[in-house]
Amino acid sequence: MNYPSKLIEQAVLEISKLPGIGKKTALRLALHLLKQNEQTVEGLTGALSRLKKETRYCERCHNLSDGPLCTVCASPSRQENVICVVAEVPDLIAIENTGQYRGTYHVLGGILSPMHGIGPEELQVASLLERVKSAGEEMEIIFALPSTMDGDTTSFYLMKLLKPFGVNISTVARGIPIGGELEYTDEVTLGRSILARVKYDFGG
Amino acid sequence: MNYPSKLIEQAVLEISKLPGIGKKTALRLALHLLKQNEQTVEGLTGALSRLKKETRYCERCHNLSDGPLCTVCASPSRQENVICVVAEVPDLIAIENTGQYRGTYHVLGGILSPMHGIGPEELQVASLLERVKSAGEEMEIIFALPSTMDGDTTSFYLMKLLKPFGVNISTVARGIPIGGELEYTDEVTLGRSILARVKYDFGG
Repeated sequence: MNYPSKLIEQAVLEISKLPGIGKKTALRLALHLLKQNEQTVEGLTGALSRLKKETRYCERCHNLSDGPLCTVCASPSRQENVICVVAEVPDLIAIENTGQYRGTYHVLGGILSPMHGIGPEELQVASLLERVKSAGEEMEIIFALPSTMDGDTTSFYLMKLLKPFGVNISTVARGIPIGGELEYTDEVTLGRSILARVKYDFGG
Repeated sequence: MNYPSKLIEQAVLEISKLPGIGKKTALRLALHLLKQNEQTVEGLTGALSRLKKETRYCERCHNLSDGPLCTVCASPSRQENVICVVAEVPDLIAIENTGQYRGTYHVLGGILSPMHGIGPEELQVASLLERVKSAGEEMEIIFALPSTMDGDTTSFYLMKLLKPFGVNISTVARGIPIGGELEYTDEVTLGRSILARVKYDFGG
């Protein structure tokens, strides 16, 4: 593509480094920003700079945080003896948005992946063990990791490490999504959901 | 949505002001930037700041430019007596990318729109007339404006202003896109393309 000026070319180059944004979209965004006043553009660039420079991570669970502890860990109403282990912050946000979970989290910062050279040292595994080790009460650990080969490997690895501490370990339920069409559910999910069928409880 | 920190909330707010980017995509982009090193983030914010602060416009055609004249106007190989009138810079870029046009441009900066309070004073109309007026040779003006009601109004308005100067005026051809299916062409385009049918020339 021909760009009318070096400045716009440079801006397109930088914007198109973002995931899912191609050169055409980048050009559209750059030309949109050019039409905005300086304050709007500074609002964006300032927010991004501050995000990178000033972002802190929770000392306990490695969630994004404004202070030493994140809002979840700092809240007195959350069950500290329940830890949900997630790979990344977006997973934590997704679970928080359900409003169904009252425990705490532990953000690993990824999953084990020998292919990409990511071992336990690259993840927040040691600090998870430390939290369990130093807990004064019985702990429950919930794995909410990706349902991929690497995700399962990570769950299995952590399970073996955590077993000696006598904690309750579970993983999030897999099955047909609520509102999902049976017909269009992939075979693996459908197969698992039949094997892991849930019995109706008719009460008394 | 609940955000883990004020910084990420602010960044999401600013990013989601961009056209076509919602809160979820903004969060994904913000978390992506957090994973990059500081240099990458500064590359982006720096390019956007400079784009807004240092961008210049061509004194002649109002295209984006690095100097007083844009690359098109500064080029000695372009036909100065042919001016293609476009609404915005992306239209100019699209025509340049075809490699078929050897004339110059005039960027209006929009089109007439009484609904949005955009009159001739808001657009680069006066400078277009000045270019035609001061031209020493016969001029050709090509309208490449949007094929909307407002676009047609703008073409008609400019045509009336330009007529006294005895210039050749034309508009880009409308019709079925090359490679487009007849069946799926909208009725207005198809109707026009029949009325404006092009006769085969069998030569001698």
